[in-house]
Amino acid sequence: MFSNRITQLFNIEYPIFQAGMVWAAGWRLASAVSNAGGLGILGAGSMSPGVLEEHIQKCSVATIKPFGVNLPLLYSGVEEQIEIILRNNVKIVVTSAGNPATFTKLLKQHGIKVMHVVSSSRFAVKAELEGCDAVIAEGFEAGGHNGREETTTMVLIPLVCKSVQIPVVAAGGIATGRQMLACMILGAEGVQMGSRFVASDEASSHPGFKNAVVQAKEGDTVVTLKELTPVRMIKNNFYNEIKKAYLEHAGIEQLQELLGKGRAREGMFEGNLNNGELEIGEVSAMINDIKPAKEIIRDIWLEFNKVLNKPLK
Amino acid sequence: MFSNRITQLFNIEYPIFQAGMVWAAGWRLASAVSNAGGLGILGAGSMSPGVLEEHIQKCSVATIKPFGVNLPLLYSGVEEQIEIILRNNVKIVVTSAGNPATFTKLLKQHGIKVMHVVSSSRFAVKAELEGCDAVIAEGFEAGGHNGREETTTMVLIPLVCKSVQIPVVAAGGIATGRQMLACMILGAEGVQMGSRFVASDEASSHPGFKNAVVQAKEGDTVVTLKELTPVRMIKNNFYNEIKKAYLEHAGIEQLQELLGKGRAREGMFEGNLNNGELEIGEVSAMINDIKPAKEIIRDIWLEFNKVLNKPLK
Repeated sequence: MFSNRITQLFNIEYPIFQAGMVWAAGWRLASAVSNAGGLGILGAGSMSPGVLEEHIQKCSVATIKPFGVNLPLLYSGVEEQIEIILRNNVKIVVTSAGNPATFTKLLKQHGIKVMHVVSSSRFAVKAELEGCDAVIAEGFEAGGHNGREETTTMVLIPLVCKSVQIPVVAAGGIATGRQMLACMILGAEGVQMGSRFVASDEASSHPGFKNAVVQAKEGDTVVTLKELTPVRMIKNNFYNEIKKAYLEHAGIEQLQELLGKGRAREGMFEGNLNNGELEIGEVSAMINDIKPAKEIIRDIWLEFNKVLNKPLK
Repeated sequence: MFSNRITQLFNIEYPIFQAGMVWAAGWRLASAVSNAGGLGILGAGSMSPGVLEEHIQKCSVATIKPFGVNLPLLYSGVEEQIEIILRNNVKIVVTSAGNPATFTKLLKQHGIKVMHVVSSSRFAVKAELEGCDAVIAEGFEAGGHNGREETTTMVLIPLVCKSVQIPVVAAGGIATGRQMLACMILGAEGVQMGSRFVASDEASSHPGFKNAVVQAKEGDTVVTLKELTPVRMIKNNFYNEIKKAYLEHAGIEQLQELLGKGRAREGMFEGNLNNGELEIGEVSAMINDIKPAKEIIRDIWLEFNKVLNKPLK
């Protein structure tokens, strides 16, 4: 039986987290991951408070294992979501895209285990100071919203591990057991995967988007809209429009107008592959199938142990 | 005694290459690395044919161990450099920044072991087809000239390893034994380090630049000038000028004019830290001392083995 600070802290079998991706991570995915021995995490970023409450309650019925909620702090309505989290006795919260000072204390007062997603060791130190139980350090290769420093997982994980005492979970560019072990060699005590779980049976992502993830090849994703919030997405027609806007020297307001509202929902949930925003990581180039979350965890754990027993070629 | 395809192919003790960095990798550094059991590589990119010949001859006197020459194919005068390489019986050549089809056959005909630096598995496959003995796969975190796909080491190494049969050497974001082992877990059979060896006693880099590498922190480097040849450099006054030019919608010609000639030499060799081009990798944030090449290799090899014996925390 594998055991380290992460499995002990969250009472899980494997130190494998499923990221709380917008439009993908509902109760079906989170409960499947938790039932399989990992940590399933609901993605509150794409849920209204009412929808979030429904998913928490359904997830609590679907699994007796621990699960968490990912709460991006950059959207309005966060306070209402926090109320729902407290009212429904959620035990684990991952905050992201904001300041760990804002809610960590409040959540901790209610006995909740709190992690914060960081893209720099500076913010990891801040998260630790604010009382976070662990940090999730996410490199530049990750999909979706992305740090401005552009530090990659290979460099970020050792830097963050050196900066804090609390355990570090690695994210960004991880979809295989080899990559999981590499990140733990770098000092992490667990991994969080987003892209890999988008291409799962249980993700609520549109089937067309899941296929786009499977089809994605090297160089097919890019970090753009750096003047707004940097985001890694698939280079589709929407991205071509962004590129054109840059060539025409669009300002921040024009970029915001081009992005509009609901682009992510349109692409990832409604399946408008041309004009929607398709947030996914570089590691999509290594994902070639859609399978049940349970198989994803099983396959990664098998490879992790196989390579651990014979690390070198 | 450690042994794998890379140590066997090049008859070296440790699968550790020192990159042939411009303005840093002369005969002193290359011979020190080779004498310490790694593979030292002269950086022909910043040498006139006459200077290259001098460095090859001095390196041959300073070490009886194998060493190589890195030959970027994007500069004029490559043919003359090739002549010098052949005339002086260089045994190992690393080609980069160009097409492996151009010179691999010719070099192989002269019994030279040839590697090509790639930033994608597409070019790795091409290098293998052209007869290269190995490829060096370099991720987005690397300093200096950089691939357009922006694929990071964590994702690039497994992709390249899956695409070719020849051995793969990982580059980009590596300065410690842990990172070396992580890259070998990902499938590489050796590593190449640039930034770490810039901060060595033997590098011909200006002492001011070496200090700048030691001082560099997370987020202090950036990939820019993507419209010309993408390059990762330290954010100094020269970079601020580039940023200003972009804000003023500079075209390719204006960027070229701003870059001018000799910026890299000015920064890295002459020590103009404000207005020169300071090419270095993200991993500079982890480099805190200047030491002899021999100690760099010793320390990395010690850590590599220590972590290999106890991979998990």
